[in-house]
Amino acid sequence: MNTSRLEAFSDGVFAIAITLLVLEIKVPPPDTVLGAELLQLWPSYLAYVVSFLVIGAIWINHHAMFHHIVRVDGTLLLLNVLHLMLIAFLPFPTAVLAEAFHRGTDEPIAAAFYSSILTVIGIFVNAMWRYAAHEYRLIDPHLAAKKVRKLRRQFLFGPIAYAIATVVALVLPWLAVLLFILLNLFYLWPRWG
Amino acid sequence: MNTSRLEAFSDGVFAIAITLLVLEIKVPPPDTVLGAELLQLWPSYLAYVVSFLVIGAIWINHHAMFHHIVRVDGTLLLLNVLHLMLIAFLPFPTAVLAEAFHRGTDEPIAAAFYSSILTVIGIFVNAMWRYAAHEYRLIDPHLAAKKVRKLRRQFLFGPIAYAIATVVALVLPWLAVLLFILLNLFYLWPRWG
Amino acid sequence: MNTSRLEAFSDGVFAIAITLLVLEIKVPPPDTVLGAELLQLWPSYLAYVVSFLVIGAIWINHHAMFHHIVRVDGTLLLLNVLHLMLIAFLPFPTAVLAEAFHRGTDEPIAAAFYSSILTVIGIFVNAMWRYAAHEYRLIDPHLAAKKVRKLRRQFLFGPIAYAIATVVALVLPWLAVLLFILLNLFYLWPRWG
Amino acid sequence: MNTSRLEAFSDGVFAIAITLLVLEIKVPPPDTVLGAELLQLWPSYLAYVVSFLVIGAIWINHHAMFHHIVRVDGTLLLLNVLHLMLIAFLPFPTAVLAEAFHRGTDEPIAAAFYSSILTVIGIFVNAMWRYAAHEYRLIDPHLAAKKVRKLRRQFLFGPIAYAIATVVALVLPWLAVLLFILLNLFYLWPRWG
Repeated sequence: MNTSRLEAFSDGVFAIAITLLVLEIKVPPPDTVLGAELLQLWPSYLAYVVSFLVIGAIWINHHAMFHHIVRVDGTLLLLNVLHLMLIAFLPFPTAVLAEAFHRGTDEPIAAAFYSSILTVIGIFVNAMWRYAAHEYRLIDPHLAAKKVRKLRRQFLFGPIAYAIATVVALVLPWLAVLLFILLNLFYLWPRWG
Repeated sequence: MNTSRLEAFSDGVFAIAITLLVLEIKVPPPDTVLGAELLQLWPSYLAYVVSFLVIGAIWINHHAMFHHIVRVDGTLLLLNVLHLMLIAFLPFPTAVLAEAFHRGTDEPIAAAFYSSILTVIGIFVNAMWRYAAHEYRLIDPHLAAKKVRKLRRQFLFGPIAYAIATVVALVLPWLAVLLFILLNLFYLWPRWG
Repeated sequence: MNTSRLEAFSDGVFAIAITLLVLEIKVPPPDTVLGAELLQLWPSYLAYVVSFLVIGAIWINHHAMFHHIVRVDGTLLLLNVLHLMLIAFLPFPTAVLAEAFHRGTDEPIAAAFYSSILTVIGIFVNAMWRYAAHEYRLIDPHLAAKKVRKLRRQFLFGPIAYAIATVVALVLPWLAVLLFILLNLFYLWPRWG
Repeated sequence: MNTSRLEAFSDGVFAIAITLLVLEIKVPPPDTVLGAELLQLWPSYLAYVVSFLVIGAIWINHHAMFHHIVRVDGTLLLLNVLHLMLIAFLPFPTAVLAEAFHRGTDEPIAAAFYSSILTVIGIFVNAMWRYAAHEYRLIDPHLAAKKVRKLRRQFLFGPIAYAIATVVALVLPWLAVLLFILLNLFYLWPRWG
């Protein structure tokens, strides 16, 4: 399988997962005051925004990595399928997070569950890059060794940050959610120079 | 990231969001008269048609804009992700609108909620174009300055019309829904000359 | 907009609508005998098969038509959006059909509702082809006039057959469902010579 | 229709079906202990992993086959539509499997139901390849006869293994689920040499 095919399939999964997030937001039932109900759904809106930014950032990350990968072998294909398995799973921890903040109980468990999934996703991102870049196995042979090492360090940042956020979540779930937003906005934020 | 990749991903989100709209229409429960129930679902059909036209028009608009954009930078990418975040959210206000008209109460809130989301989408469309077109930052350098200004004026029409519709919705929700349909049919309507 | 873009977007809607059909099949609730429940779901399986064949046939039909269309204008774009609006709606009449056969009442209404949607889809197919082919407005100028007329006659078959099936459905809903299957299998069936 | 169009549509259905799997995992209801509930959902996670690997393997298999197929005719198109009909159906047996293991009853029926769908999918895979490869009808004329026979034998493995798993499921449902995972991991596992 060539890289463009794998990227197109992955892009499809990213686009579908990101668009399915809205299905977790349920319309208020009859016999309620609609205006008040729409306001009370804020945990669902918050979870939607967080996961949209998360999947958006992972998608851009995936592209940045495959910009340098020129060949696909069986191992990378398997790692990519397992990576997508976790991406496509994200609507569930998103809904759990919204539910916990809506209840007003169990936020630590919900935020730690969410964060731990992101940690595992980050580990797969690193596994993919390290496997592909090892002795230039599947990457562009003209890529500077310095750049390869720089990317390896950059990819490490994600799972470490999310592992810390998982611990934070157990104590201060609100701070963890704030971290999710800041980490992804920071990642998505344009850089100059 | 190049423009064709960004457009393909955006097209995916548009196609999925537009096709998910139908999931908000629920099958009548057992022990009801099916014919009567299917007729009573008219608010769901109406909301479906409105949102399908809305997303269709935004999709065509997105293409028209990217026809002139030749490069993508980090800022435009972030603006586009935020733009898609609101598009993918549309099935929810659509379901809320249908629910309010089905209940026969709270239509003003529901229509204003729907309309305000469209206003924000329109603001992002303008932000994307103004950012990309500013001093020909990301657009085709051969595009006539007159055409750039004309497009800027055209893109302004959307959010202004929806902001007015939001105010109208609070007083005359029915008129606002009629405005949504007319605005989008007018936009989608073929032009000659 | 060029034809390949419009076809890709349409293909996306077809693929999503066809894959969403399964969401209408609900898992049996707890405290039931699973084996018996899975058998009792036959109306859902039947409706799934019918709609899968229907959307599959419409998809192939759409391709056959766009094989000859070389340009898109605003009118064709609008007709195509309205055409897709009805395709994406199909999971709902599919679920209604399954529900009616599951209840054992209201099958005539459900089958006629389903059939009437297909009739309207067929009318849009004809409108698209007639508009595009009129004086070779948007079609390949090298297409033989005889072939244009032949396609026009072929496209007429669908809405006429479904209009008849709508009337049949009101009296013999079972026969109508059988007609849906036969019409689409006949359409999908390979031809030689 | 050319092969790339058919592959793109099939890829769309694969990507959507694989991403819809998560919708079957329901958020725990209010007034429960979230941590305990998330653990009790293990049958849903297990079913999700199994079906993700299954669809991933079928997707890679589909590509491997179409790598050698150079033309599409009506029969192959029909076989492919019927093949996709079963792929898109998979979220339902997946949910049934999770439900049965969650209940703690009816696992044999659920696992046999799941396995029998995979058996039929495998039969269609074989039908597609045998039809396409018969006297080099639709495949690359330069493909070695030895390779054609080798692929035919390889494709036979799937439905035979799943037919055996169906029988096993009726007696030892747990072993059948283990077989599903092992068979697909084995298939997805990289090969060398």
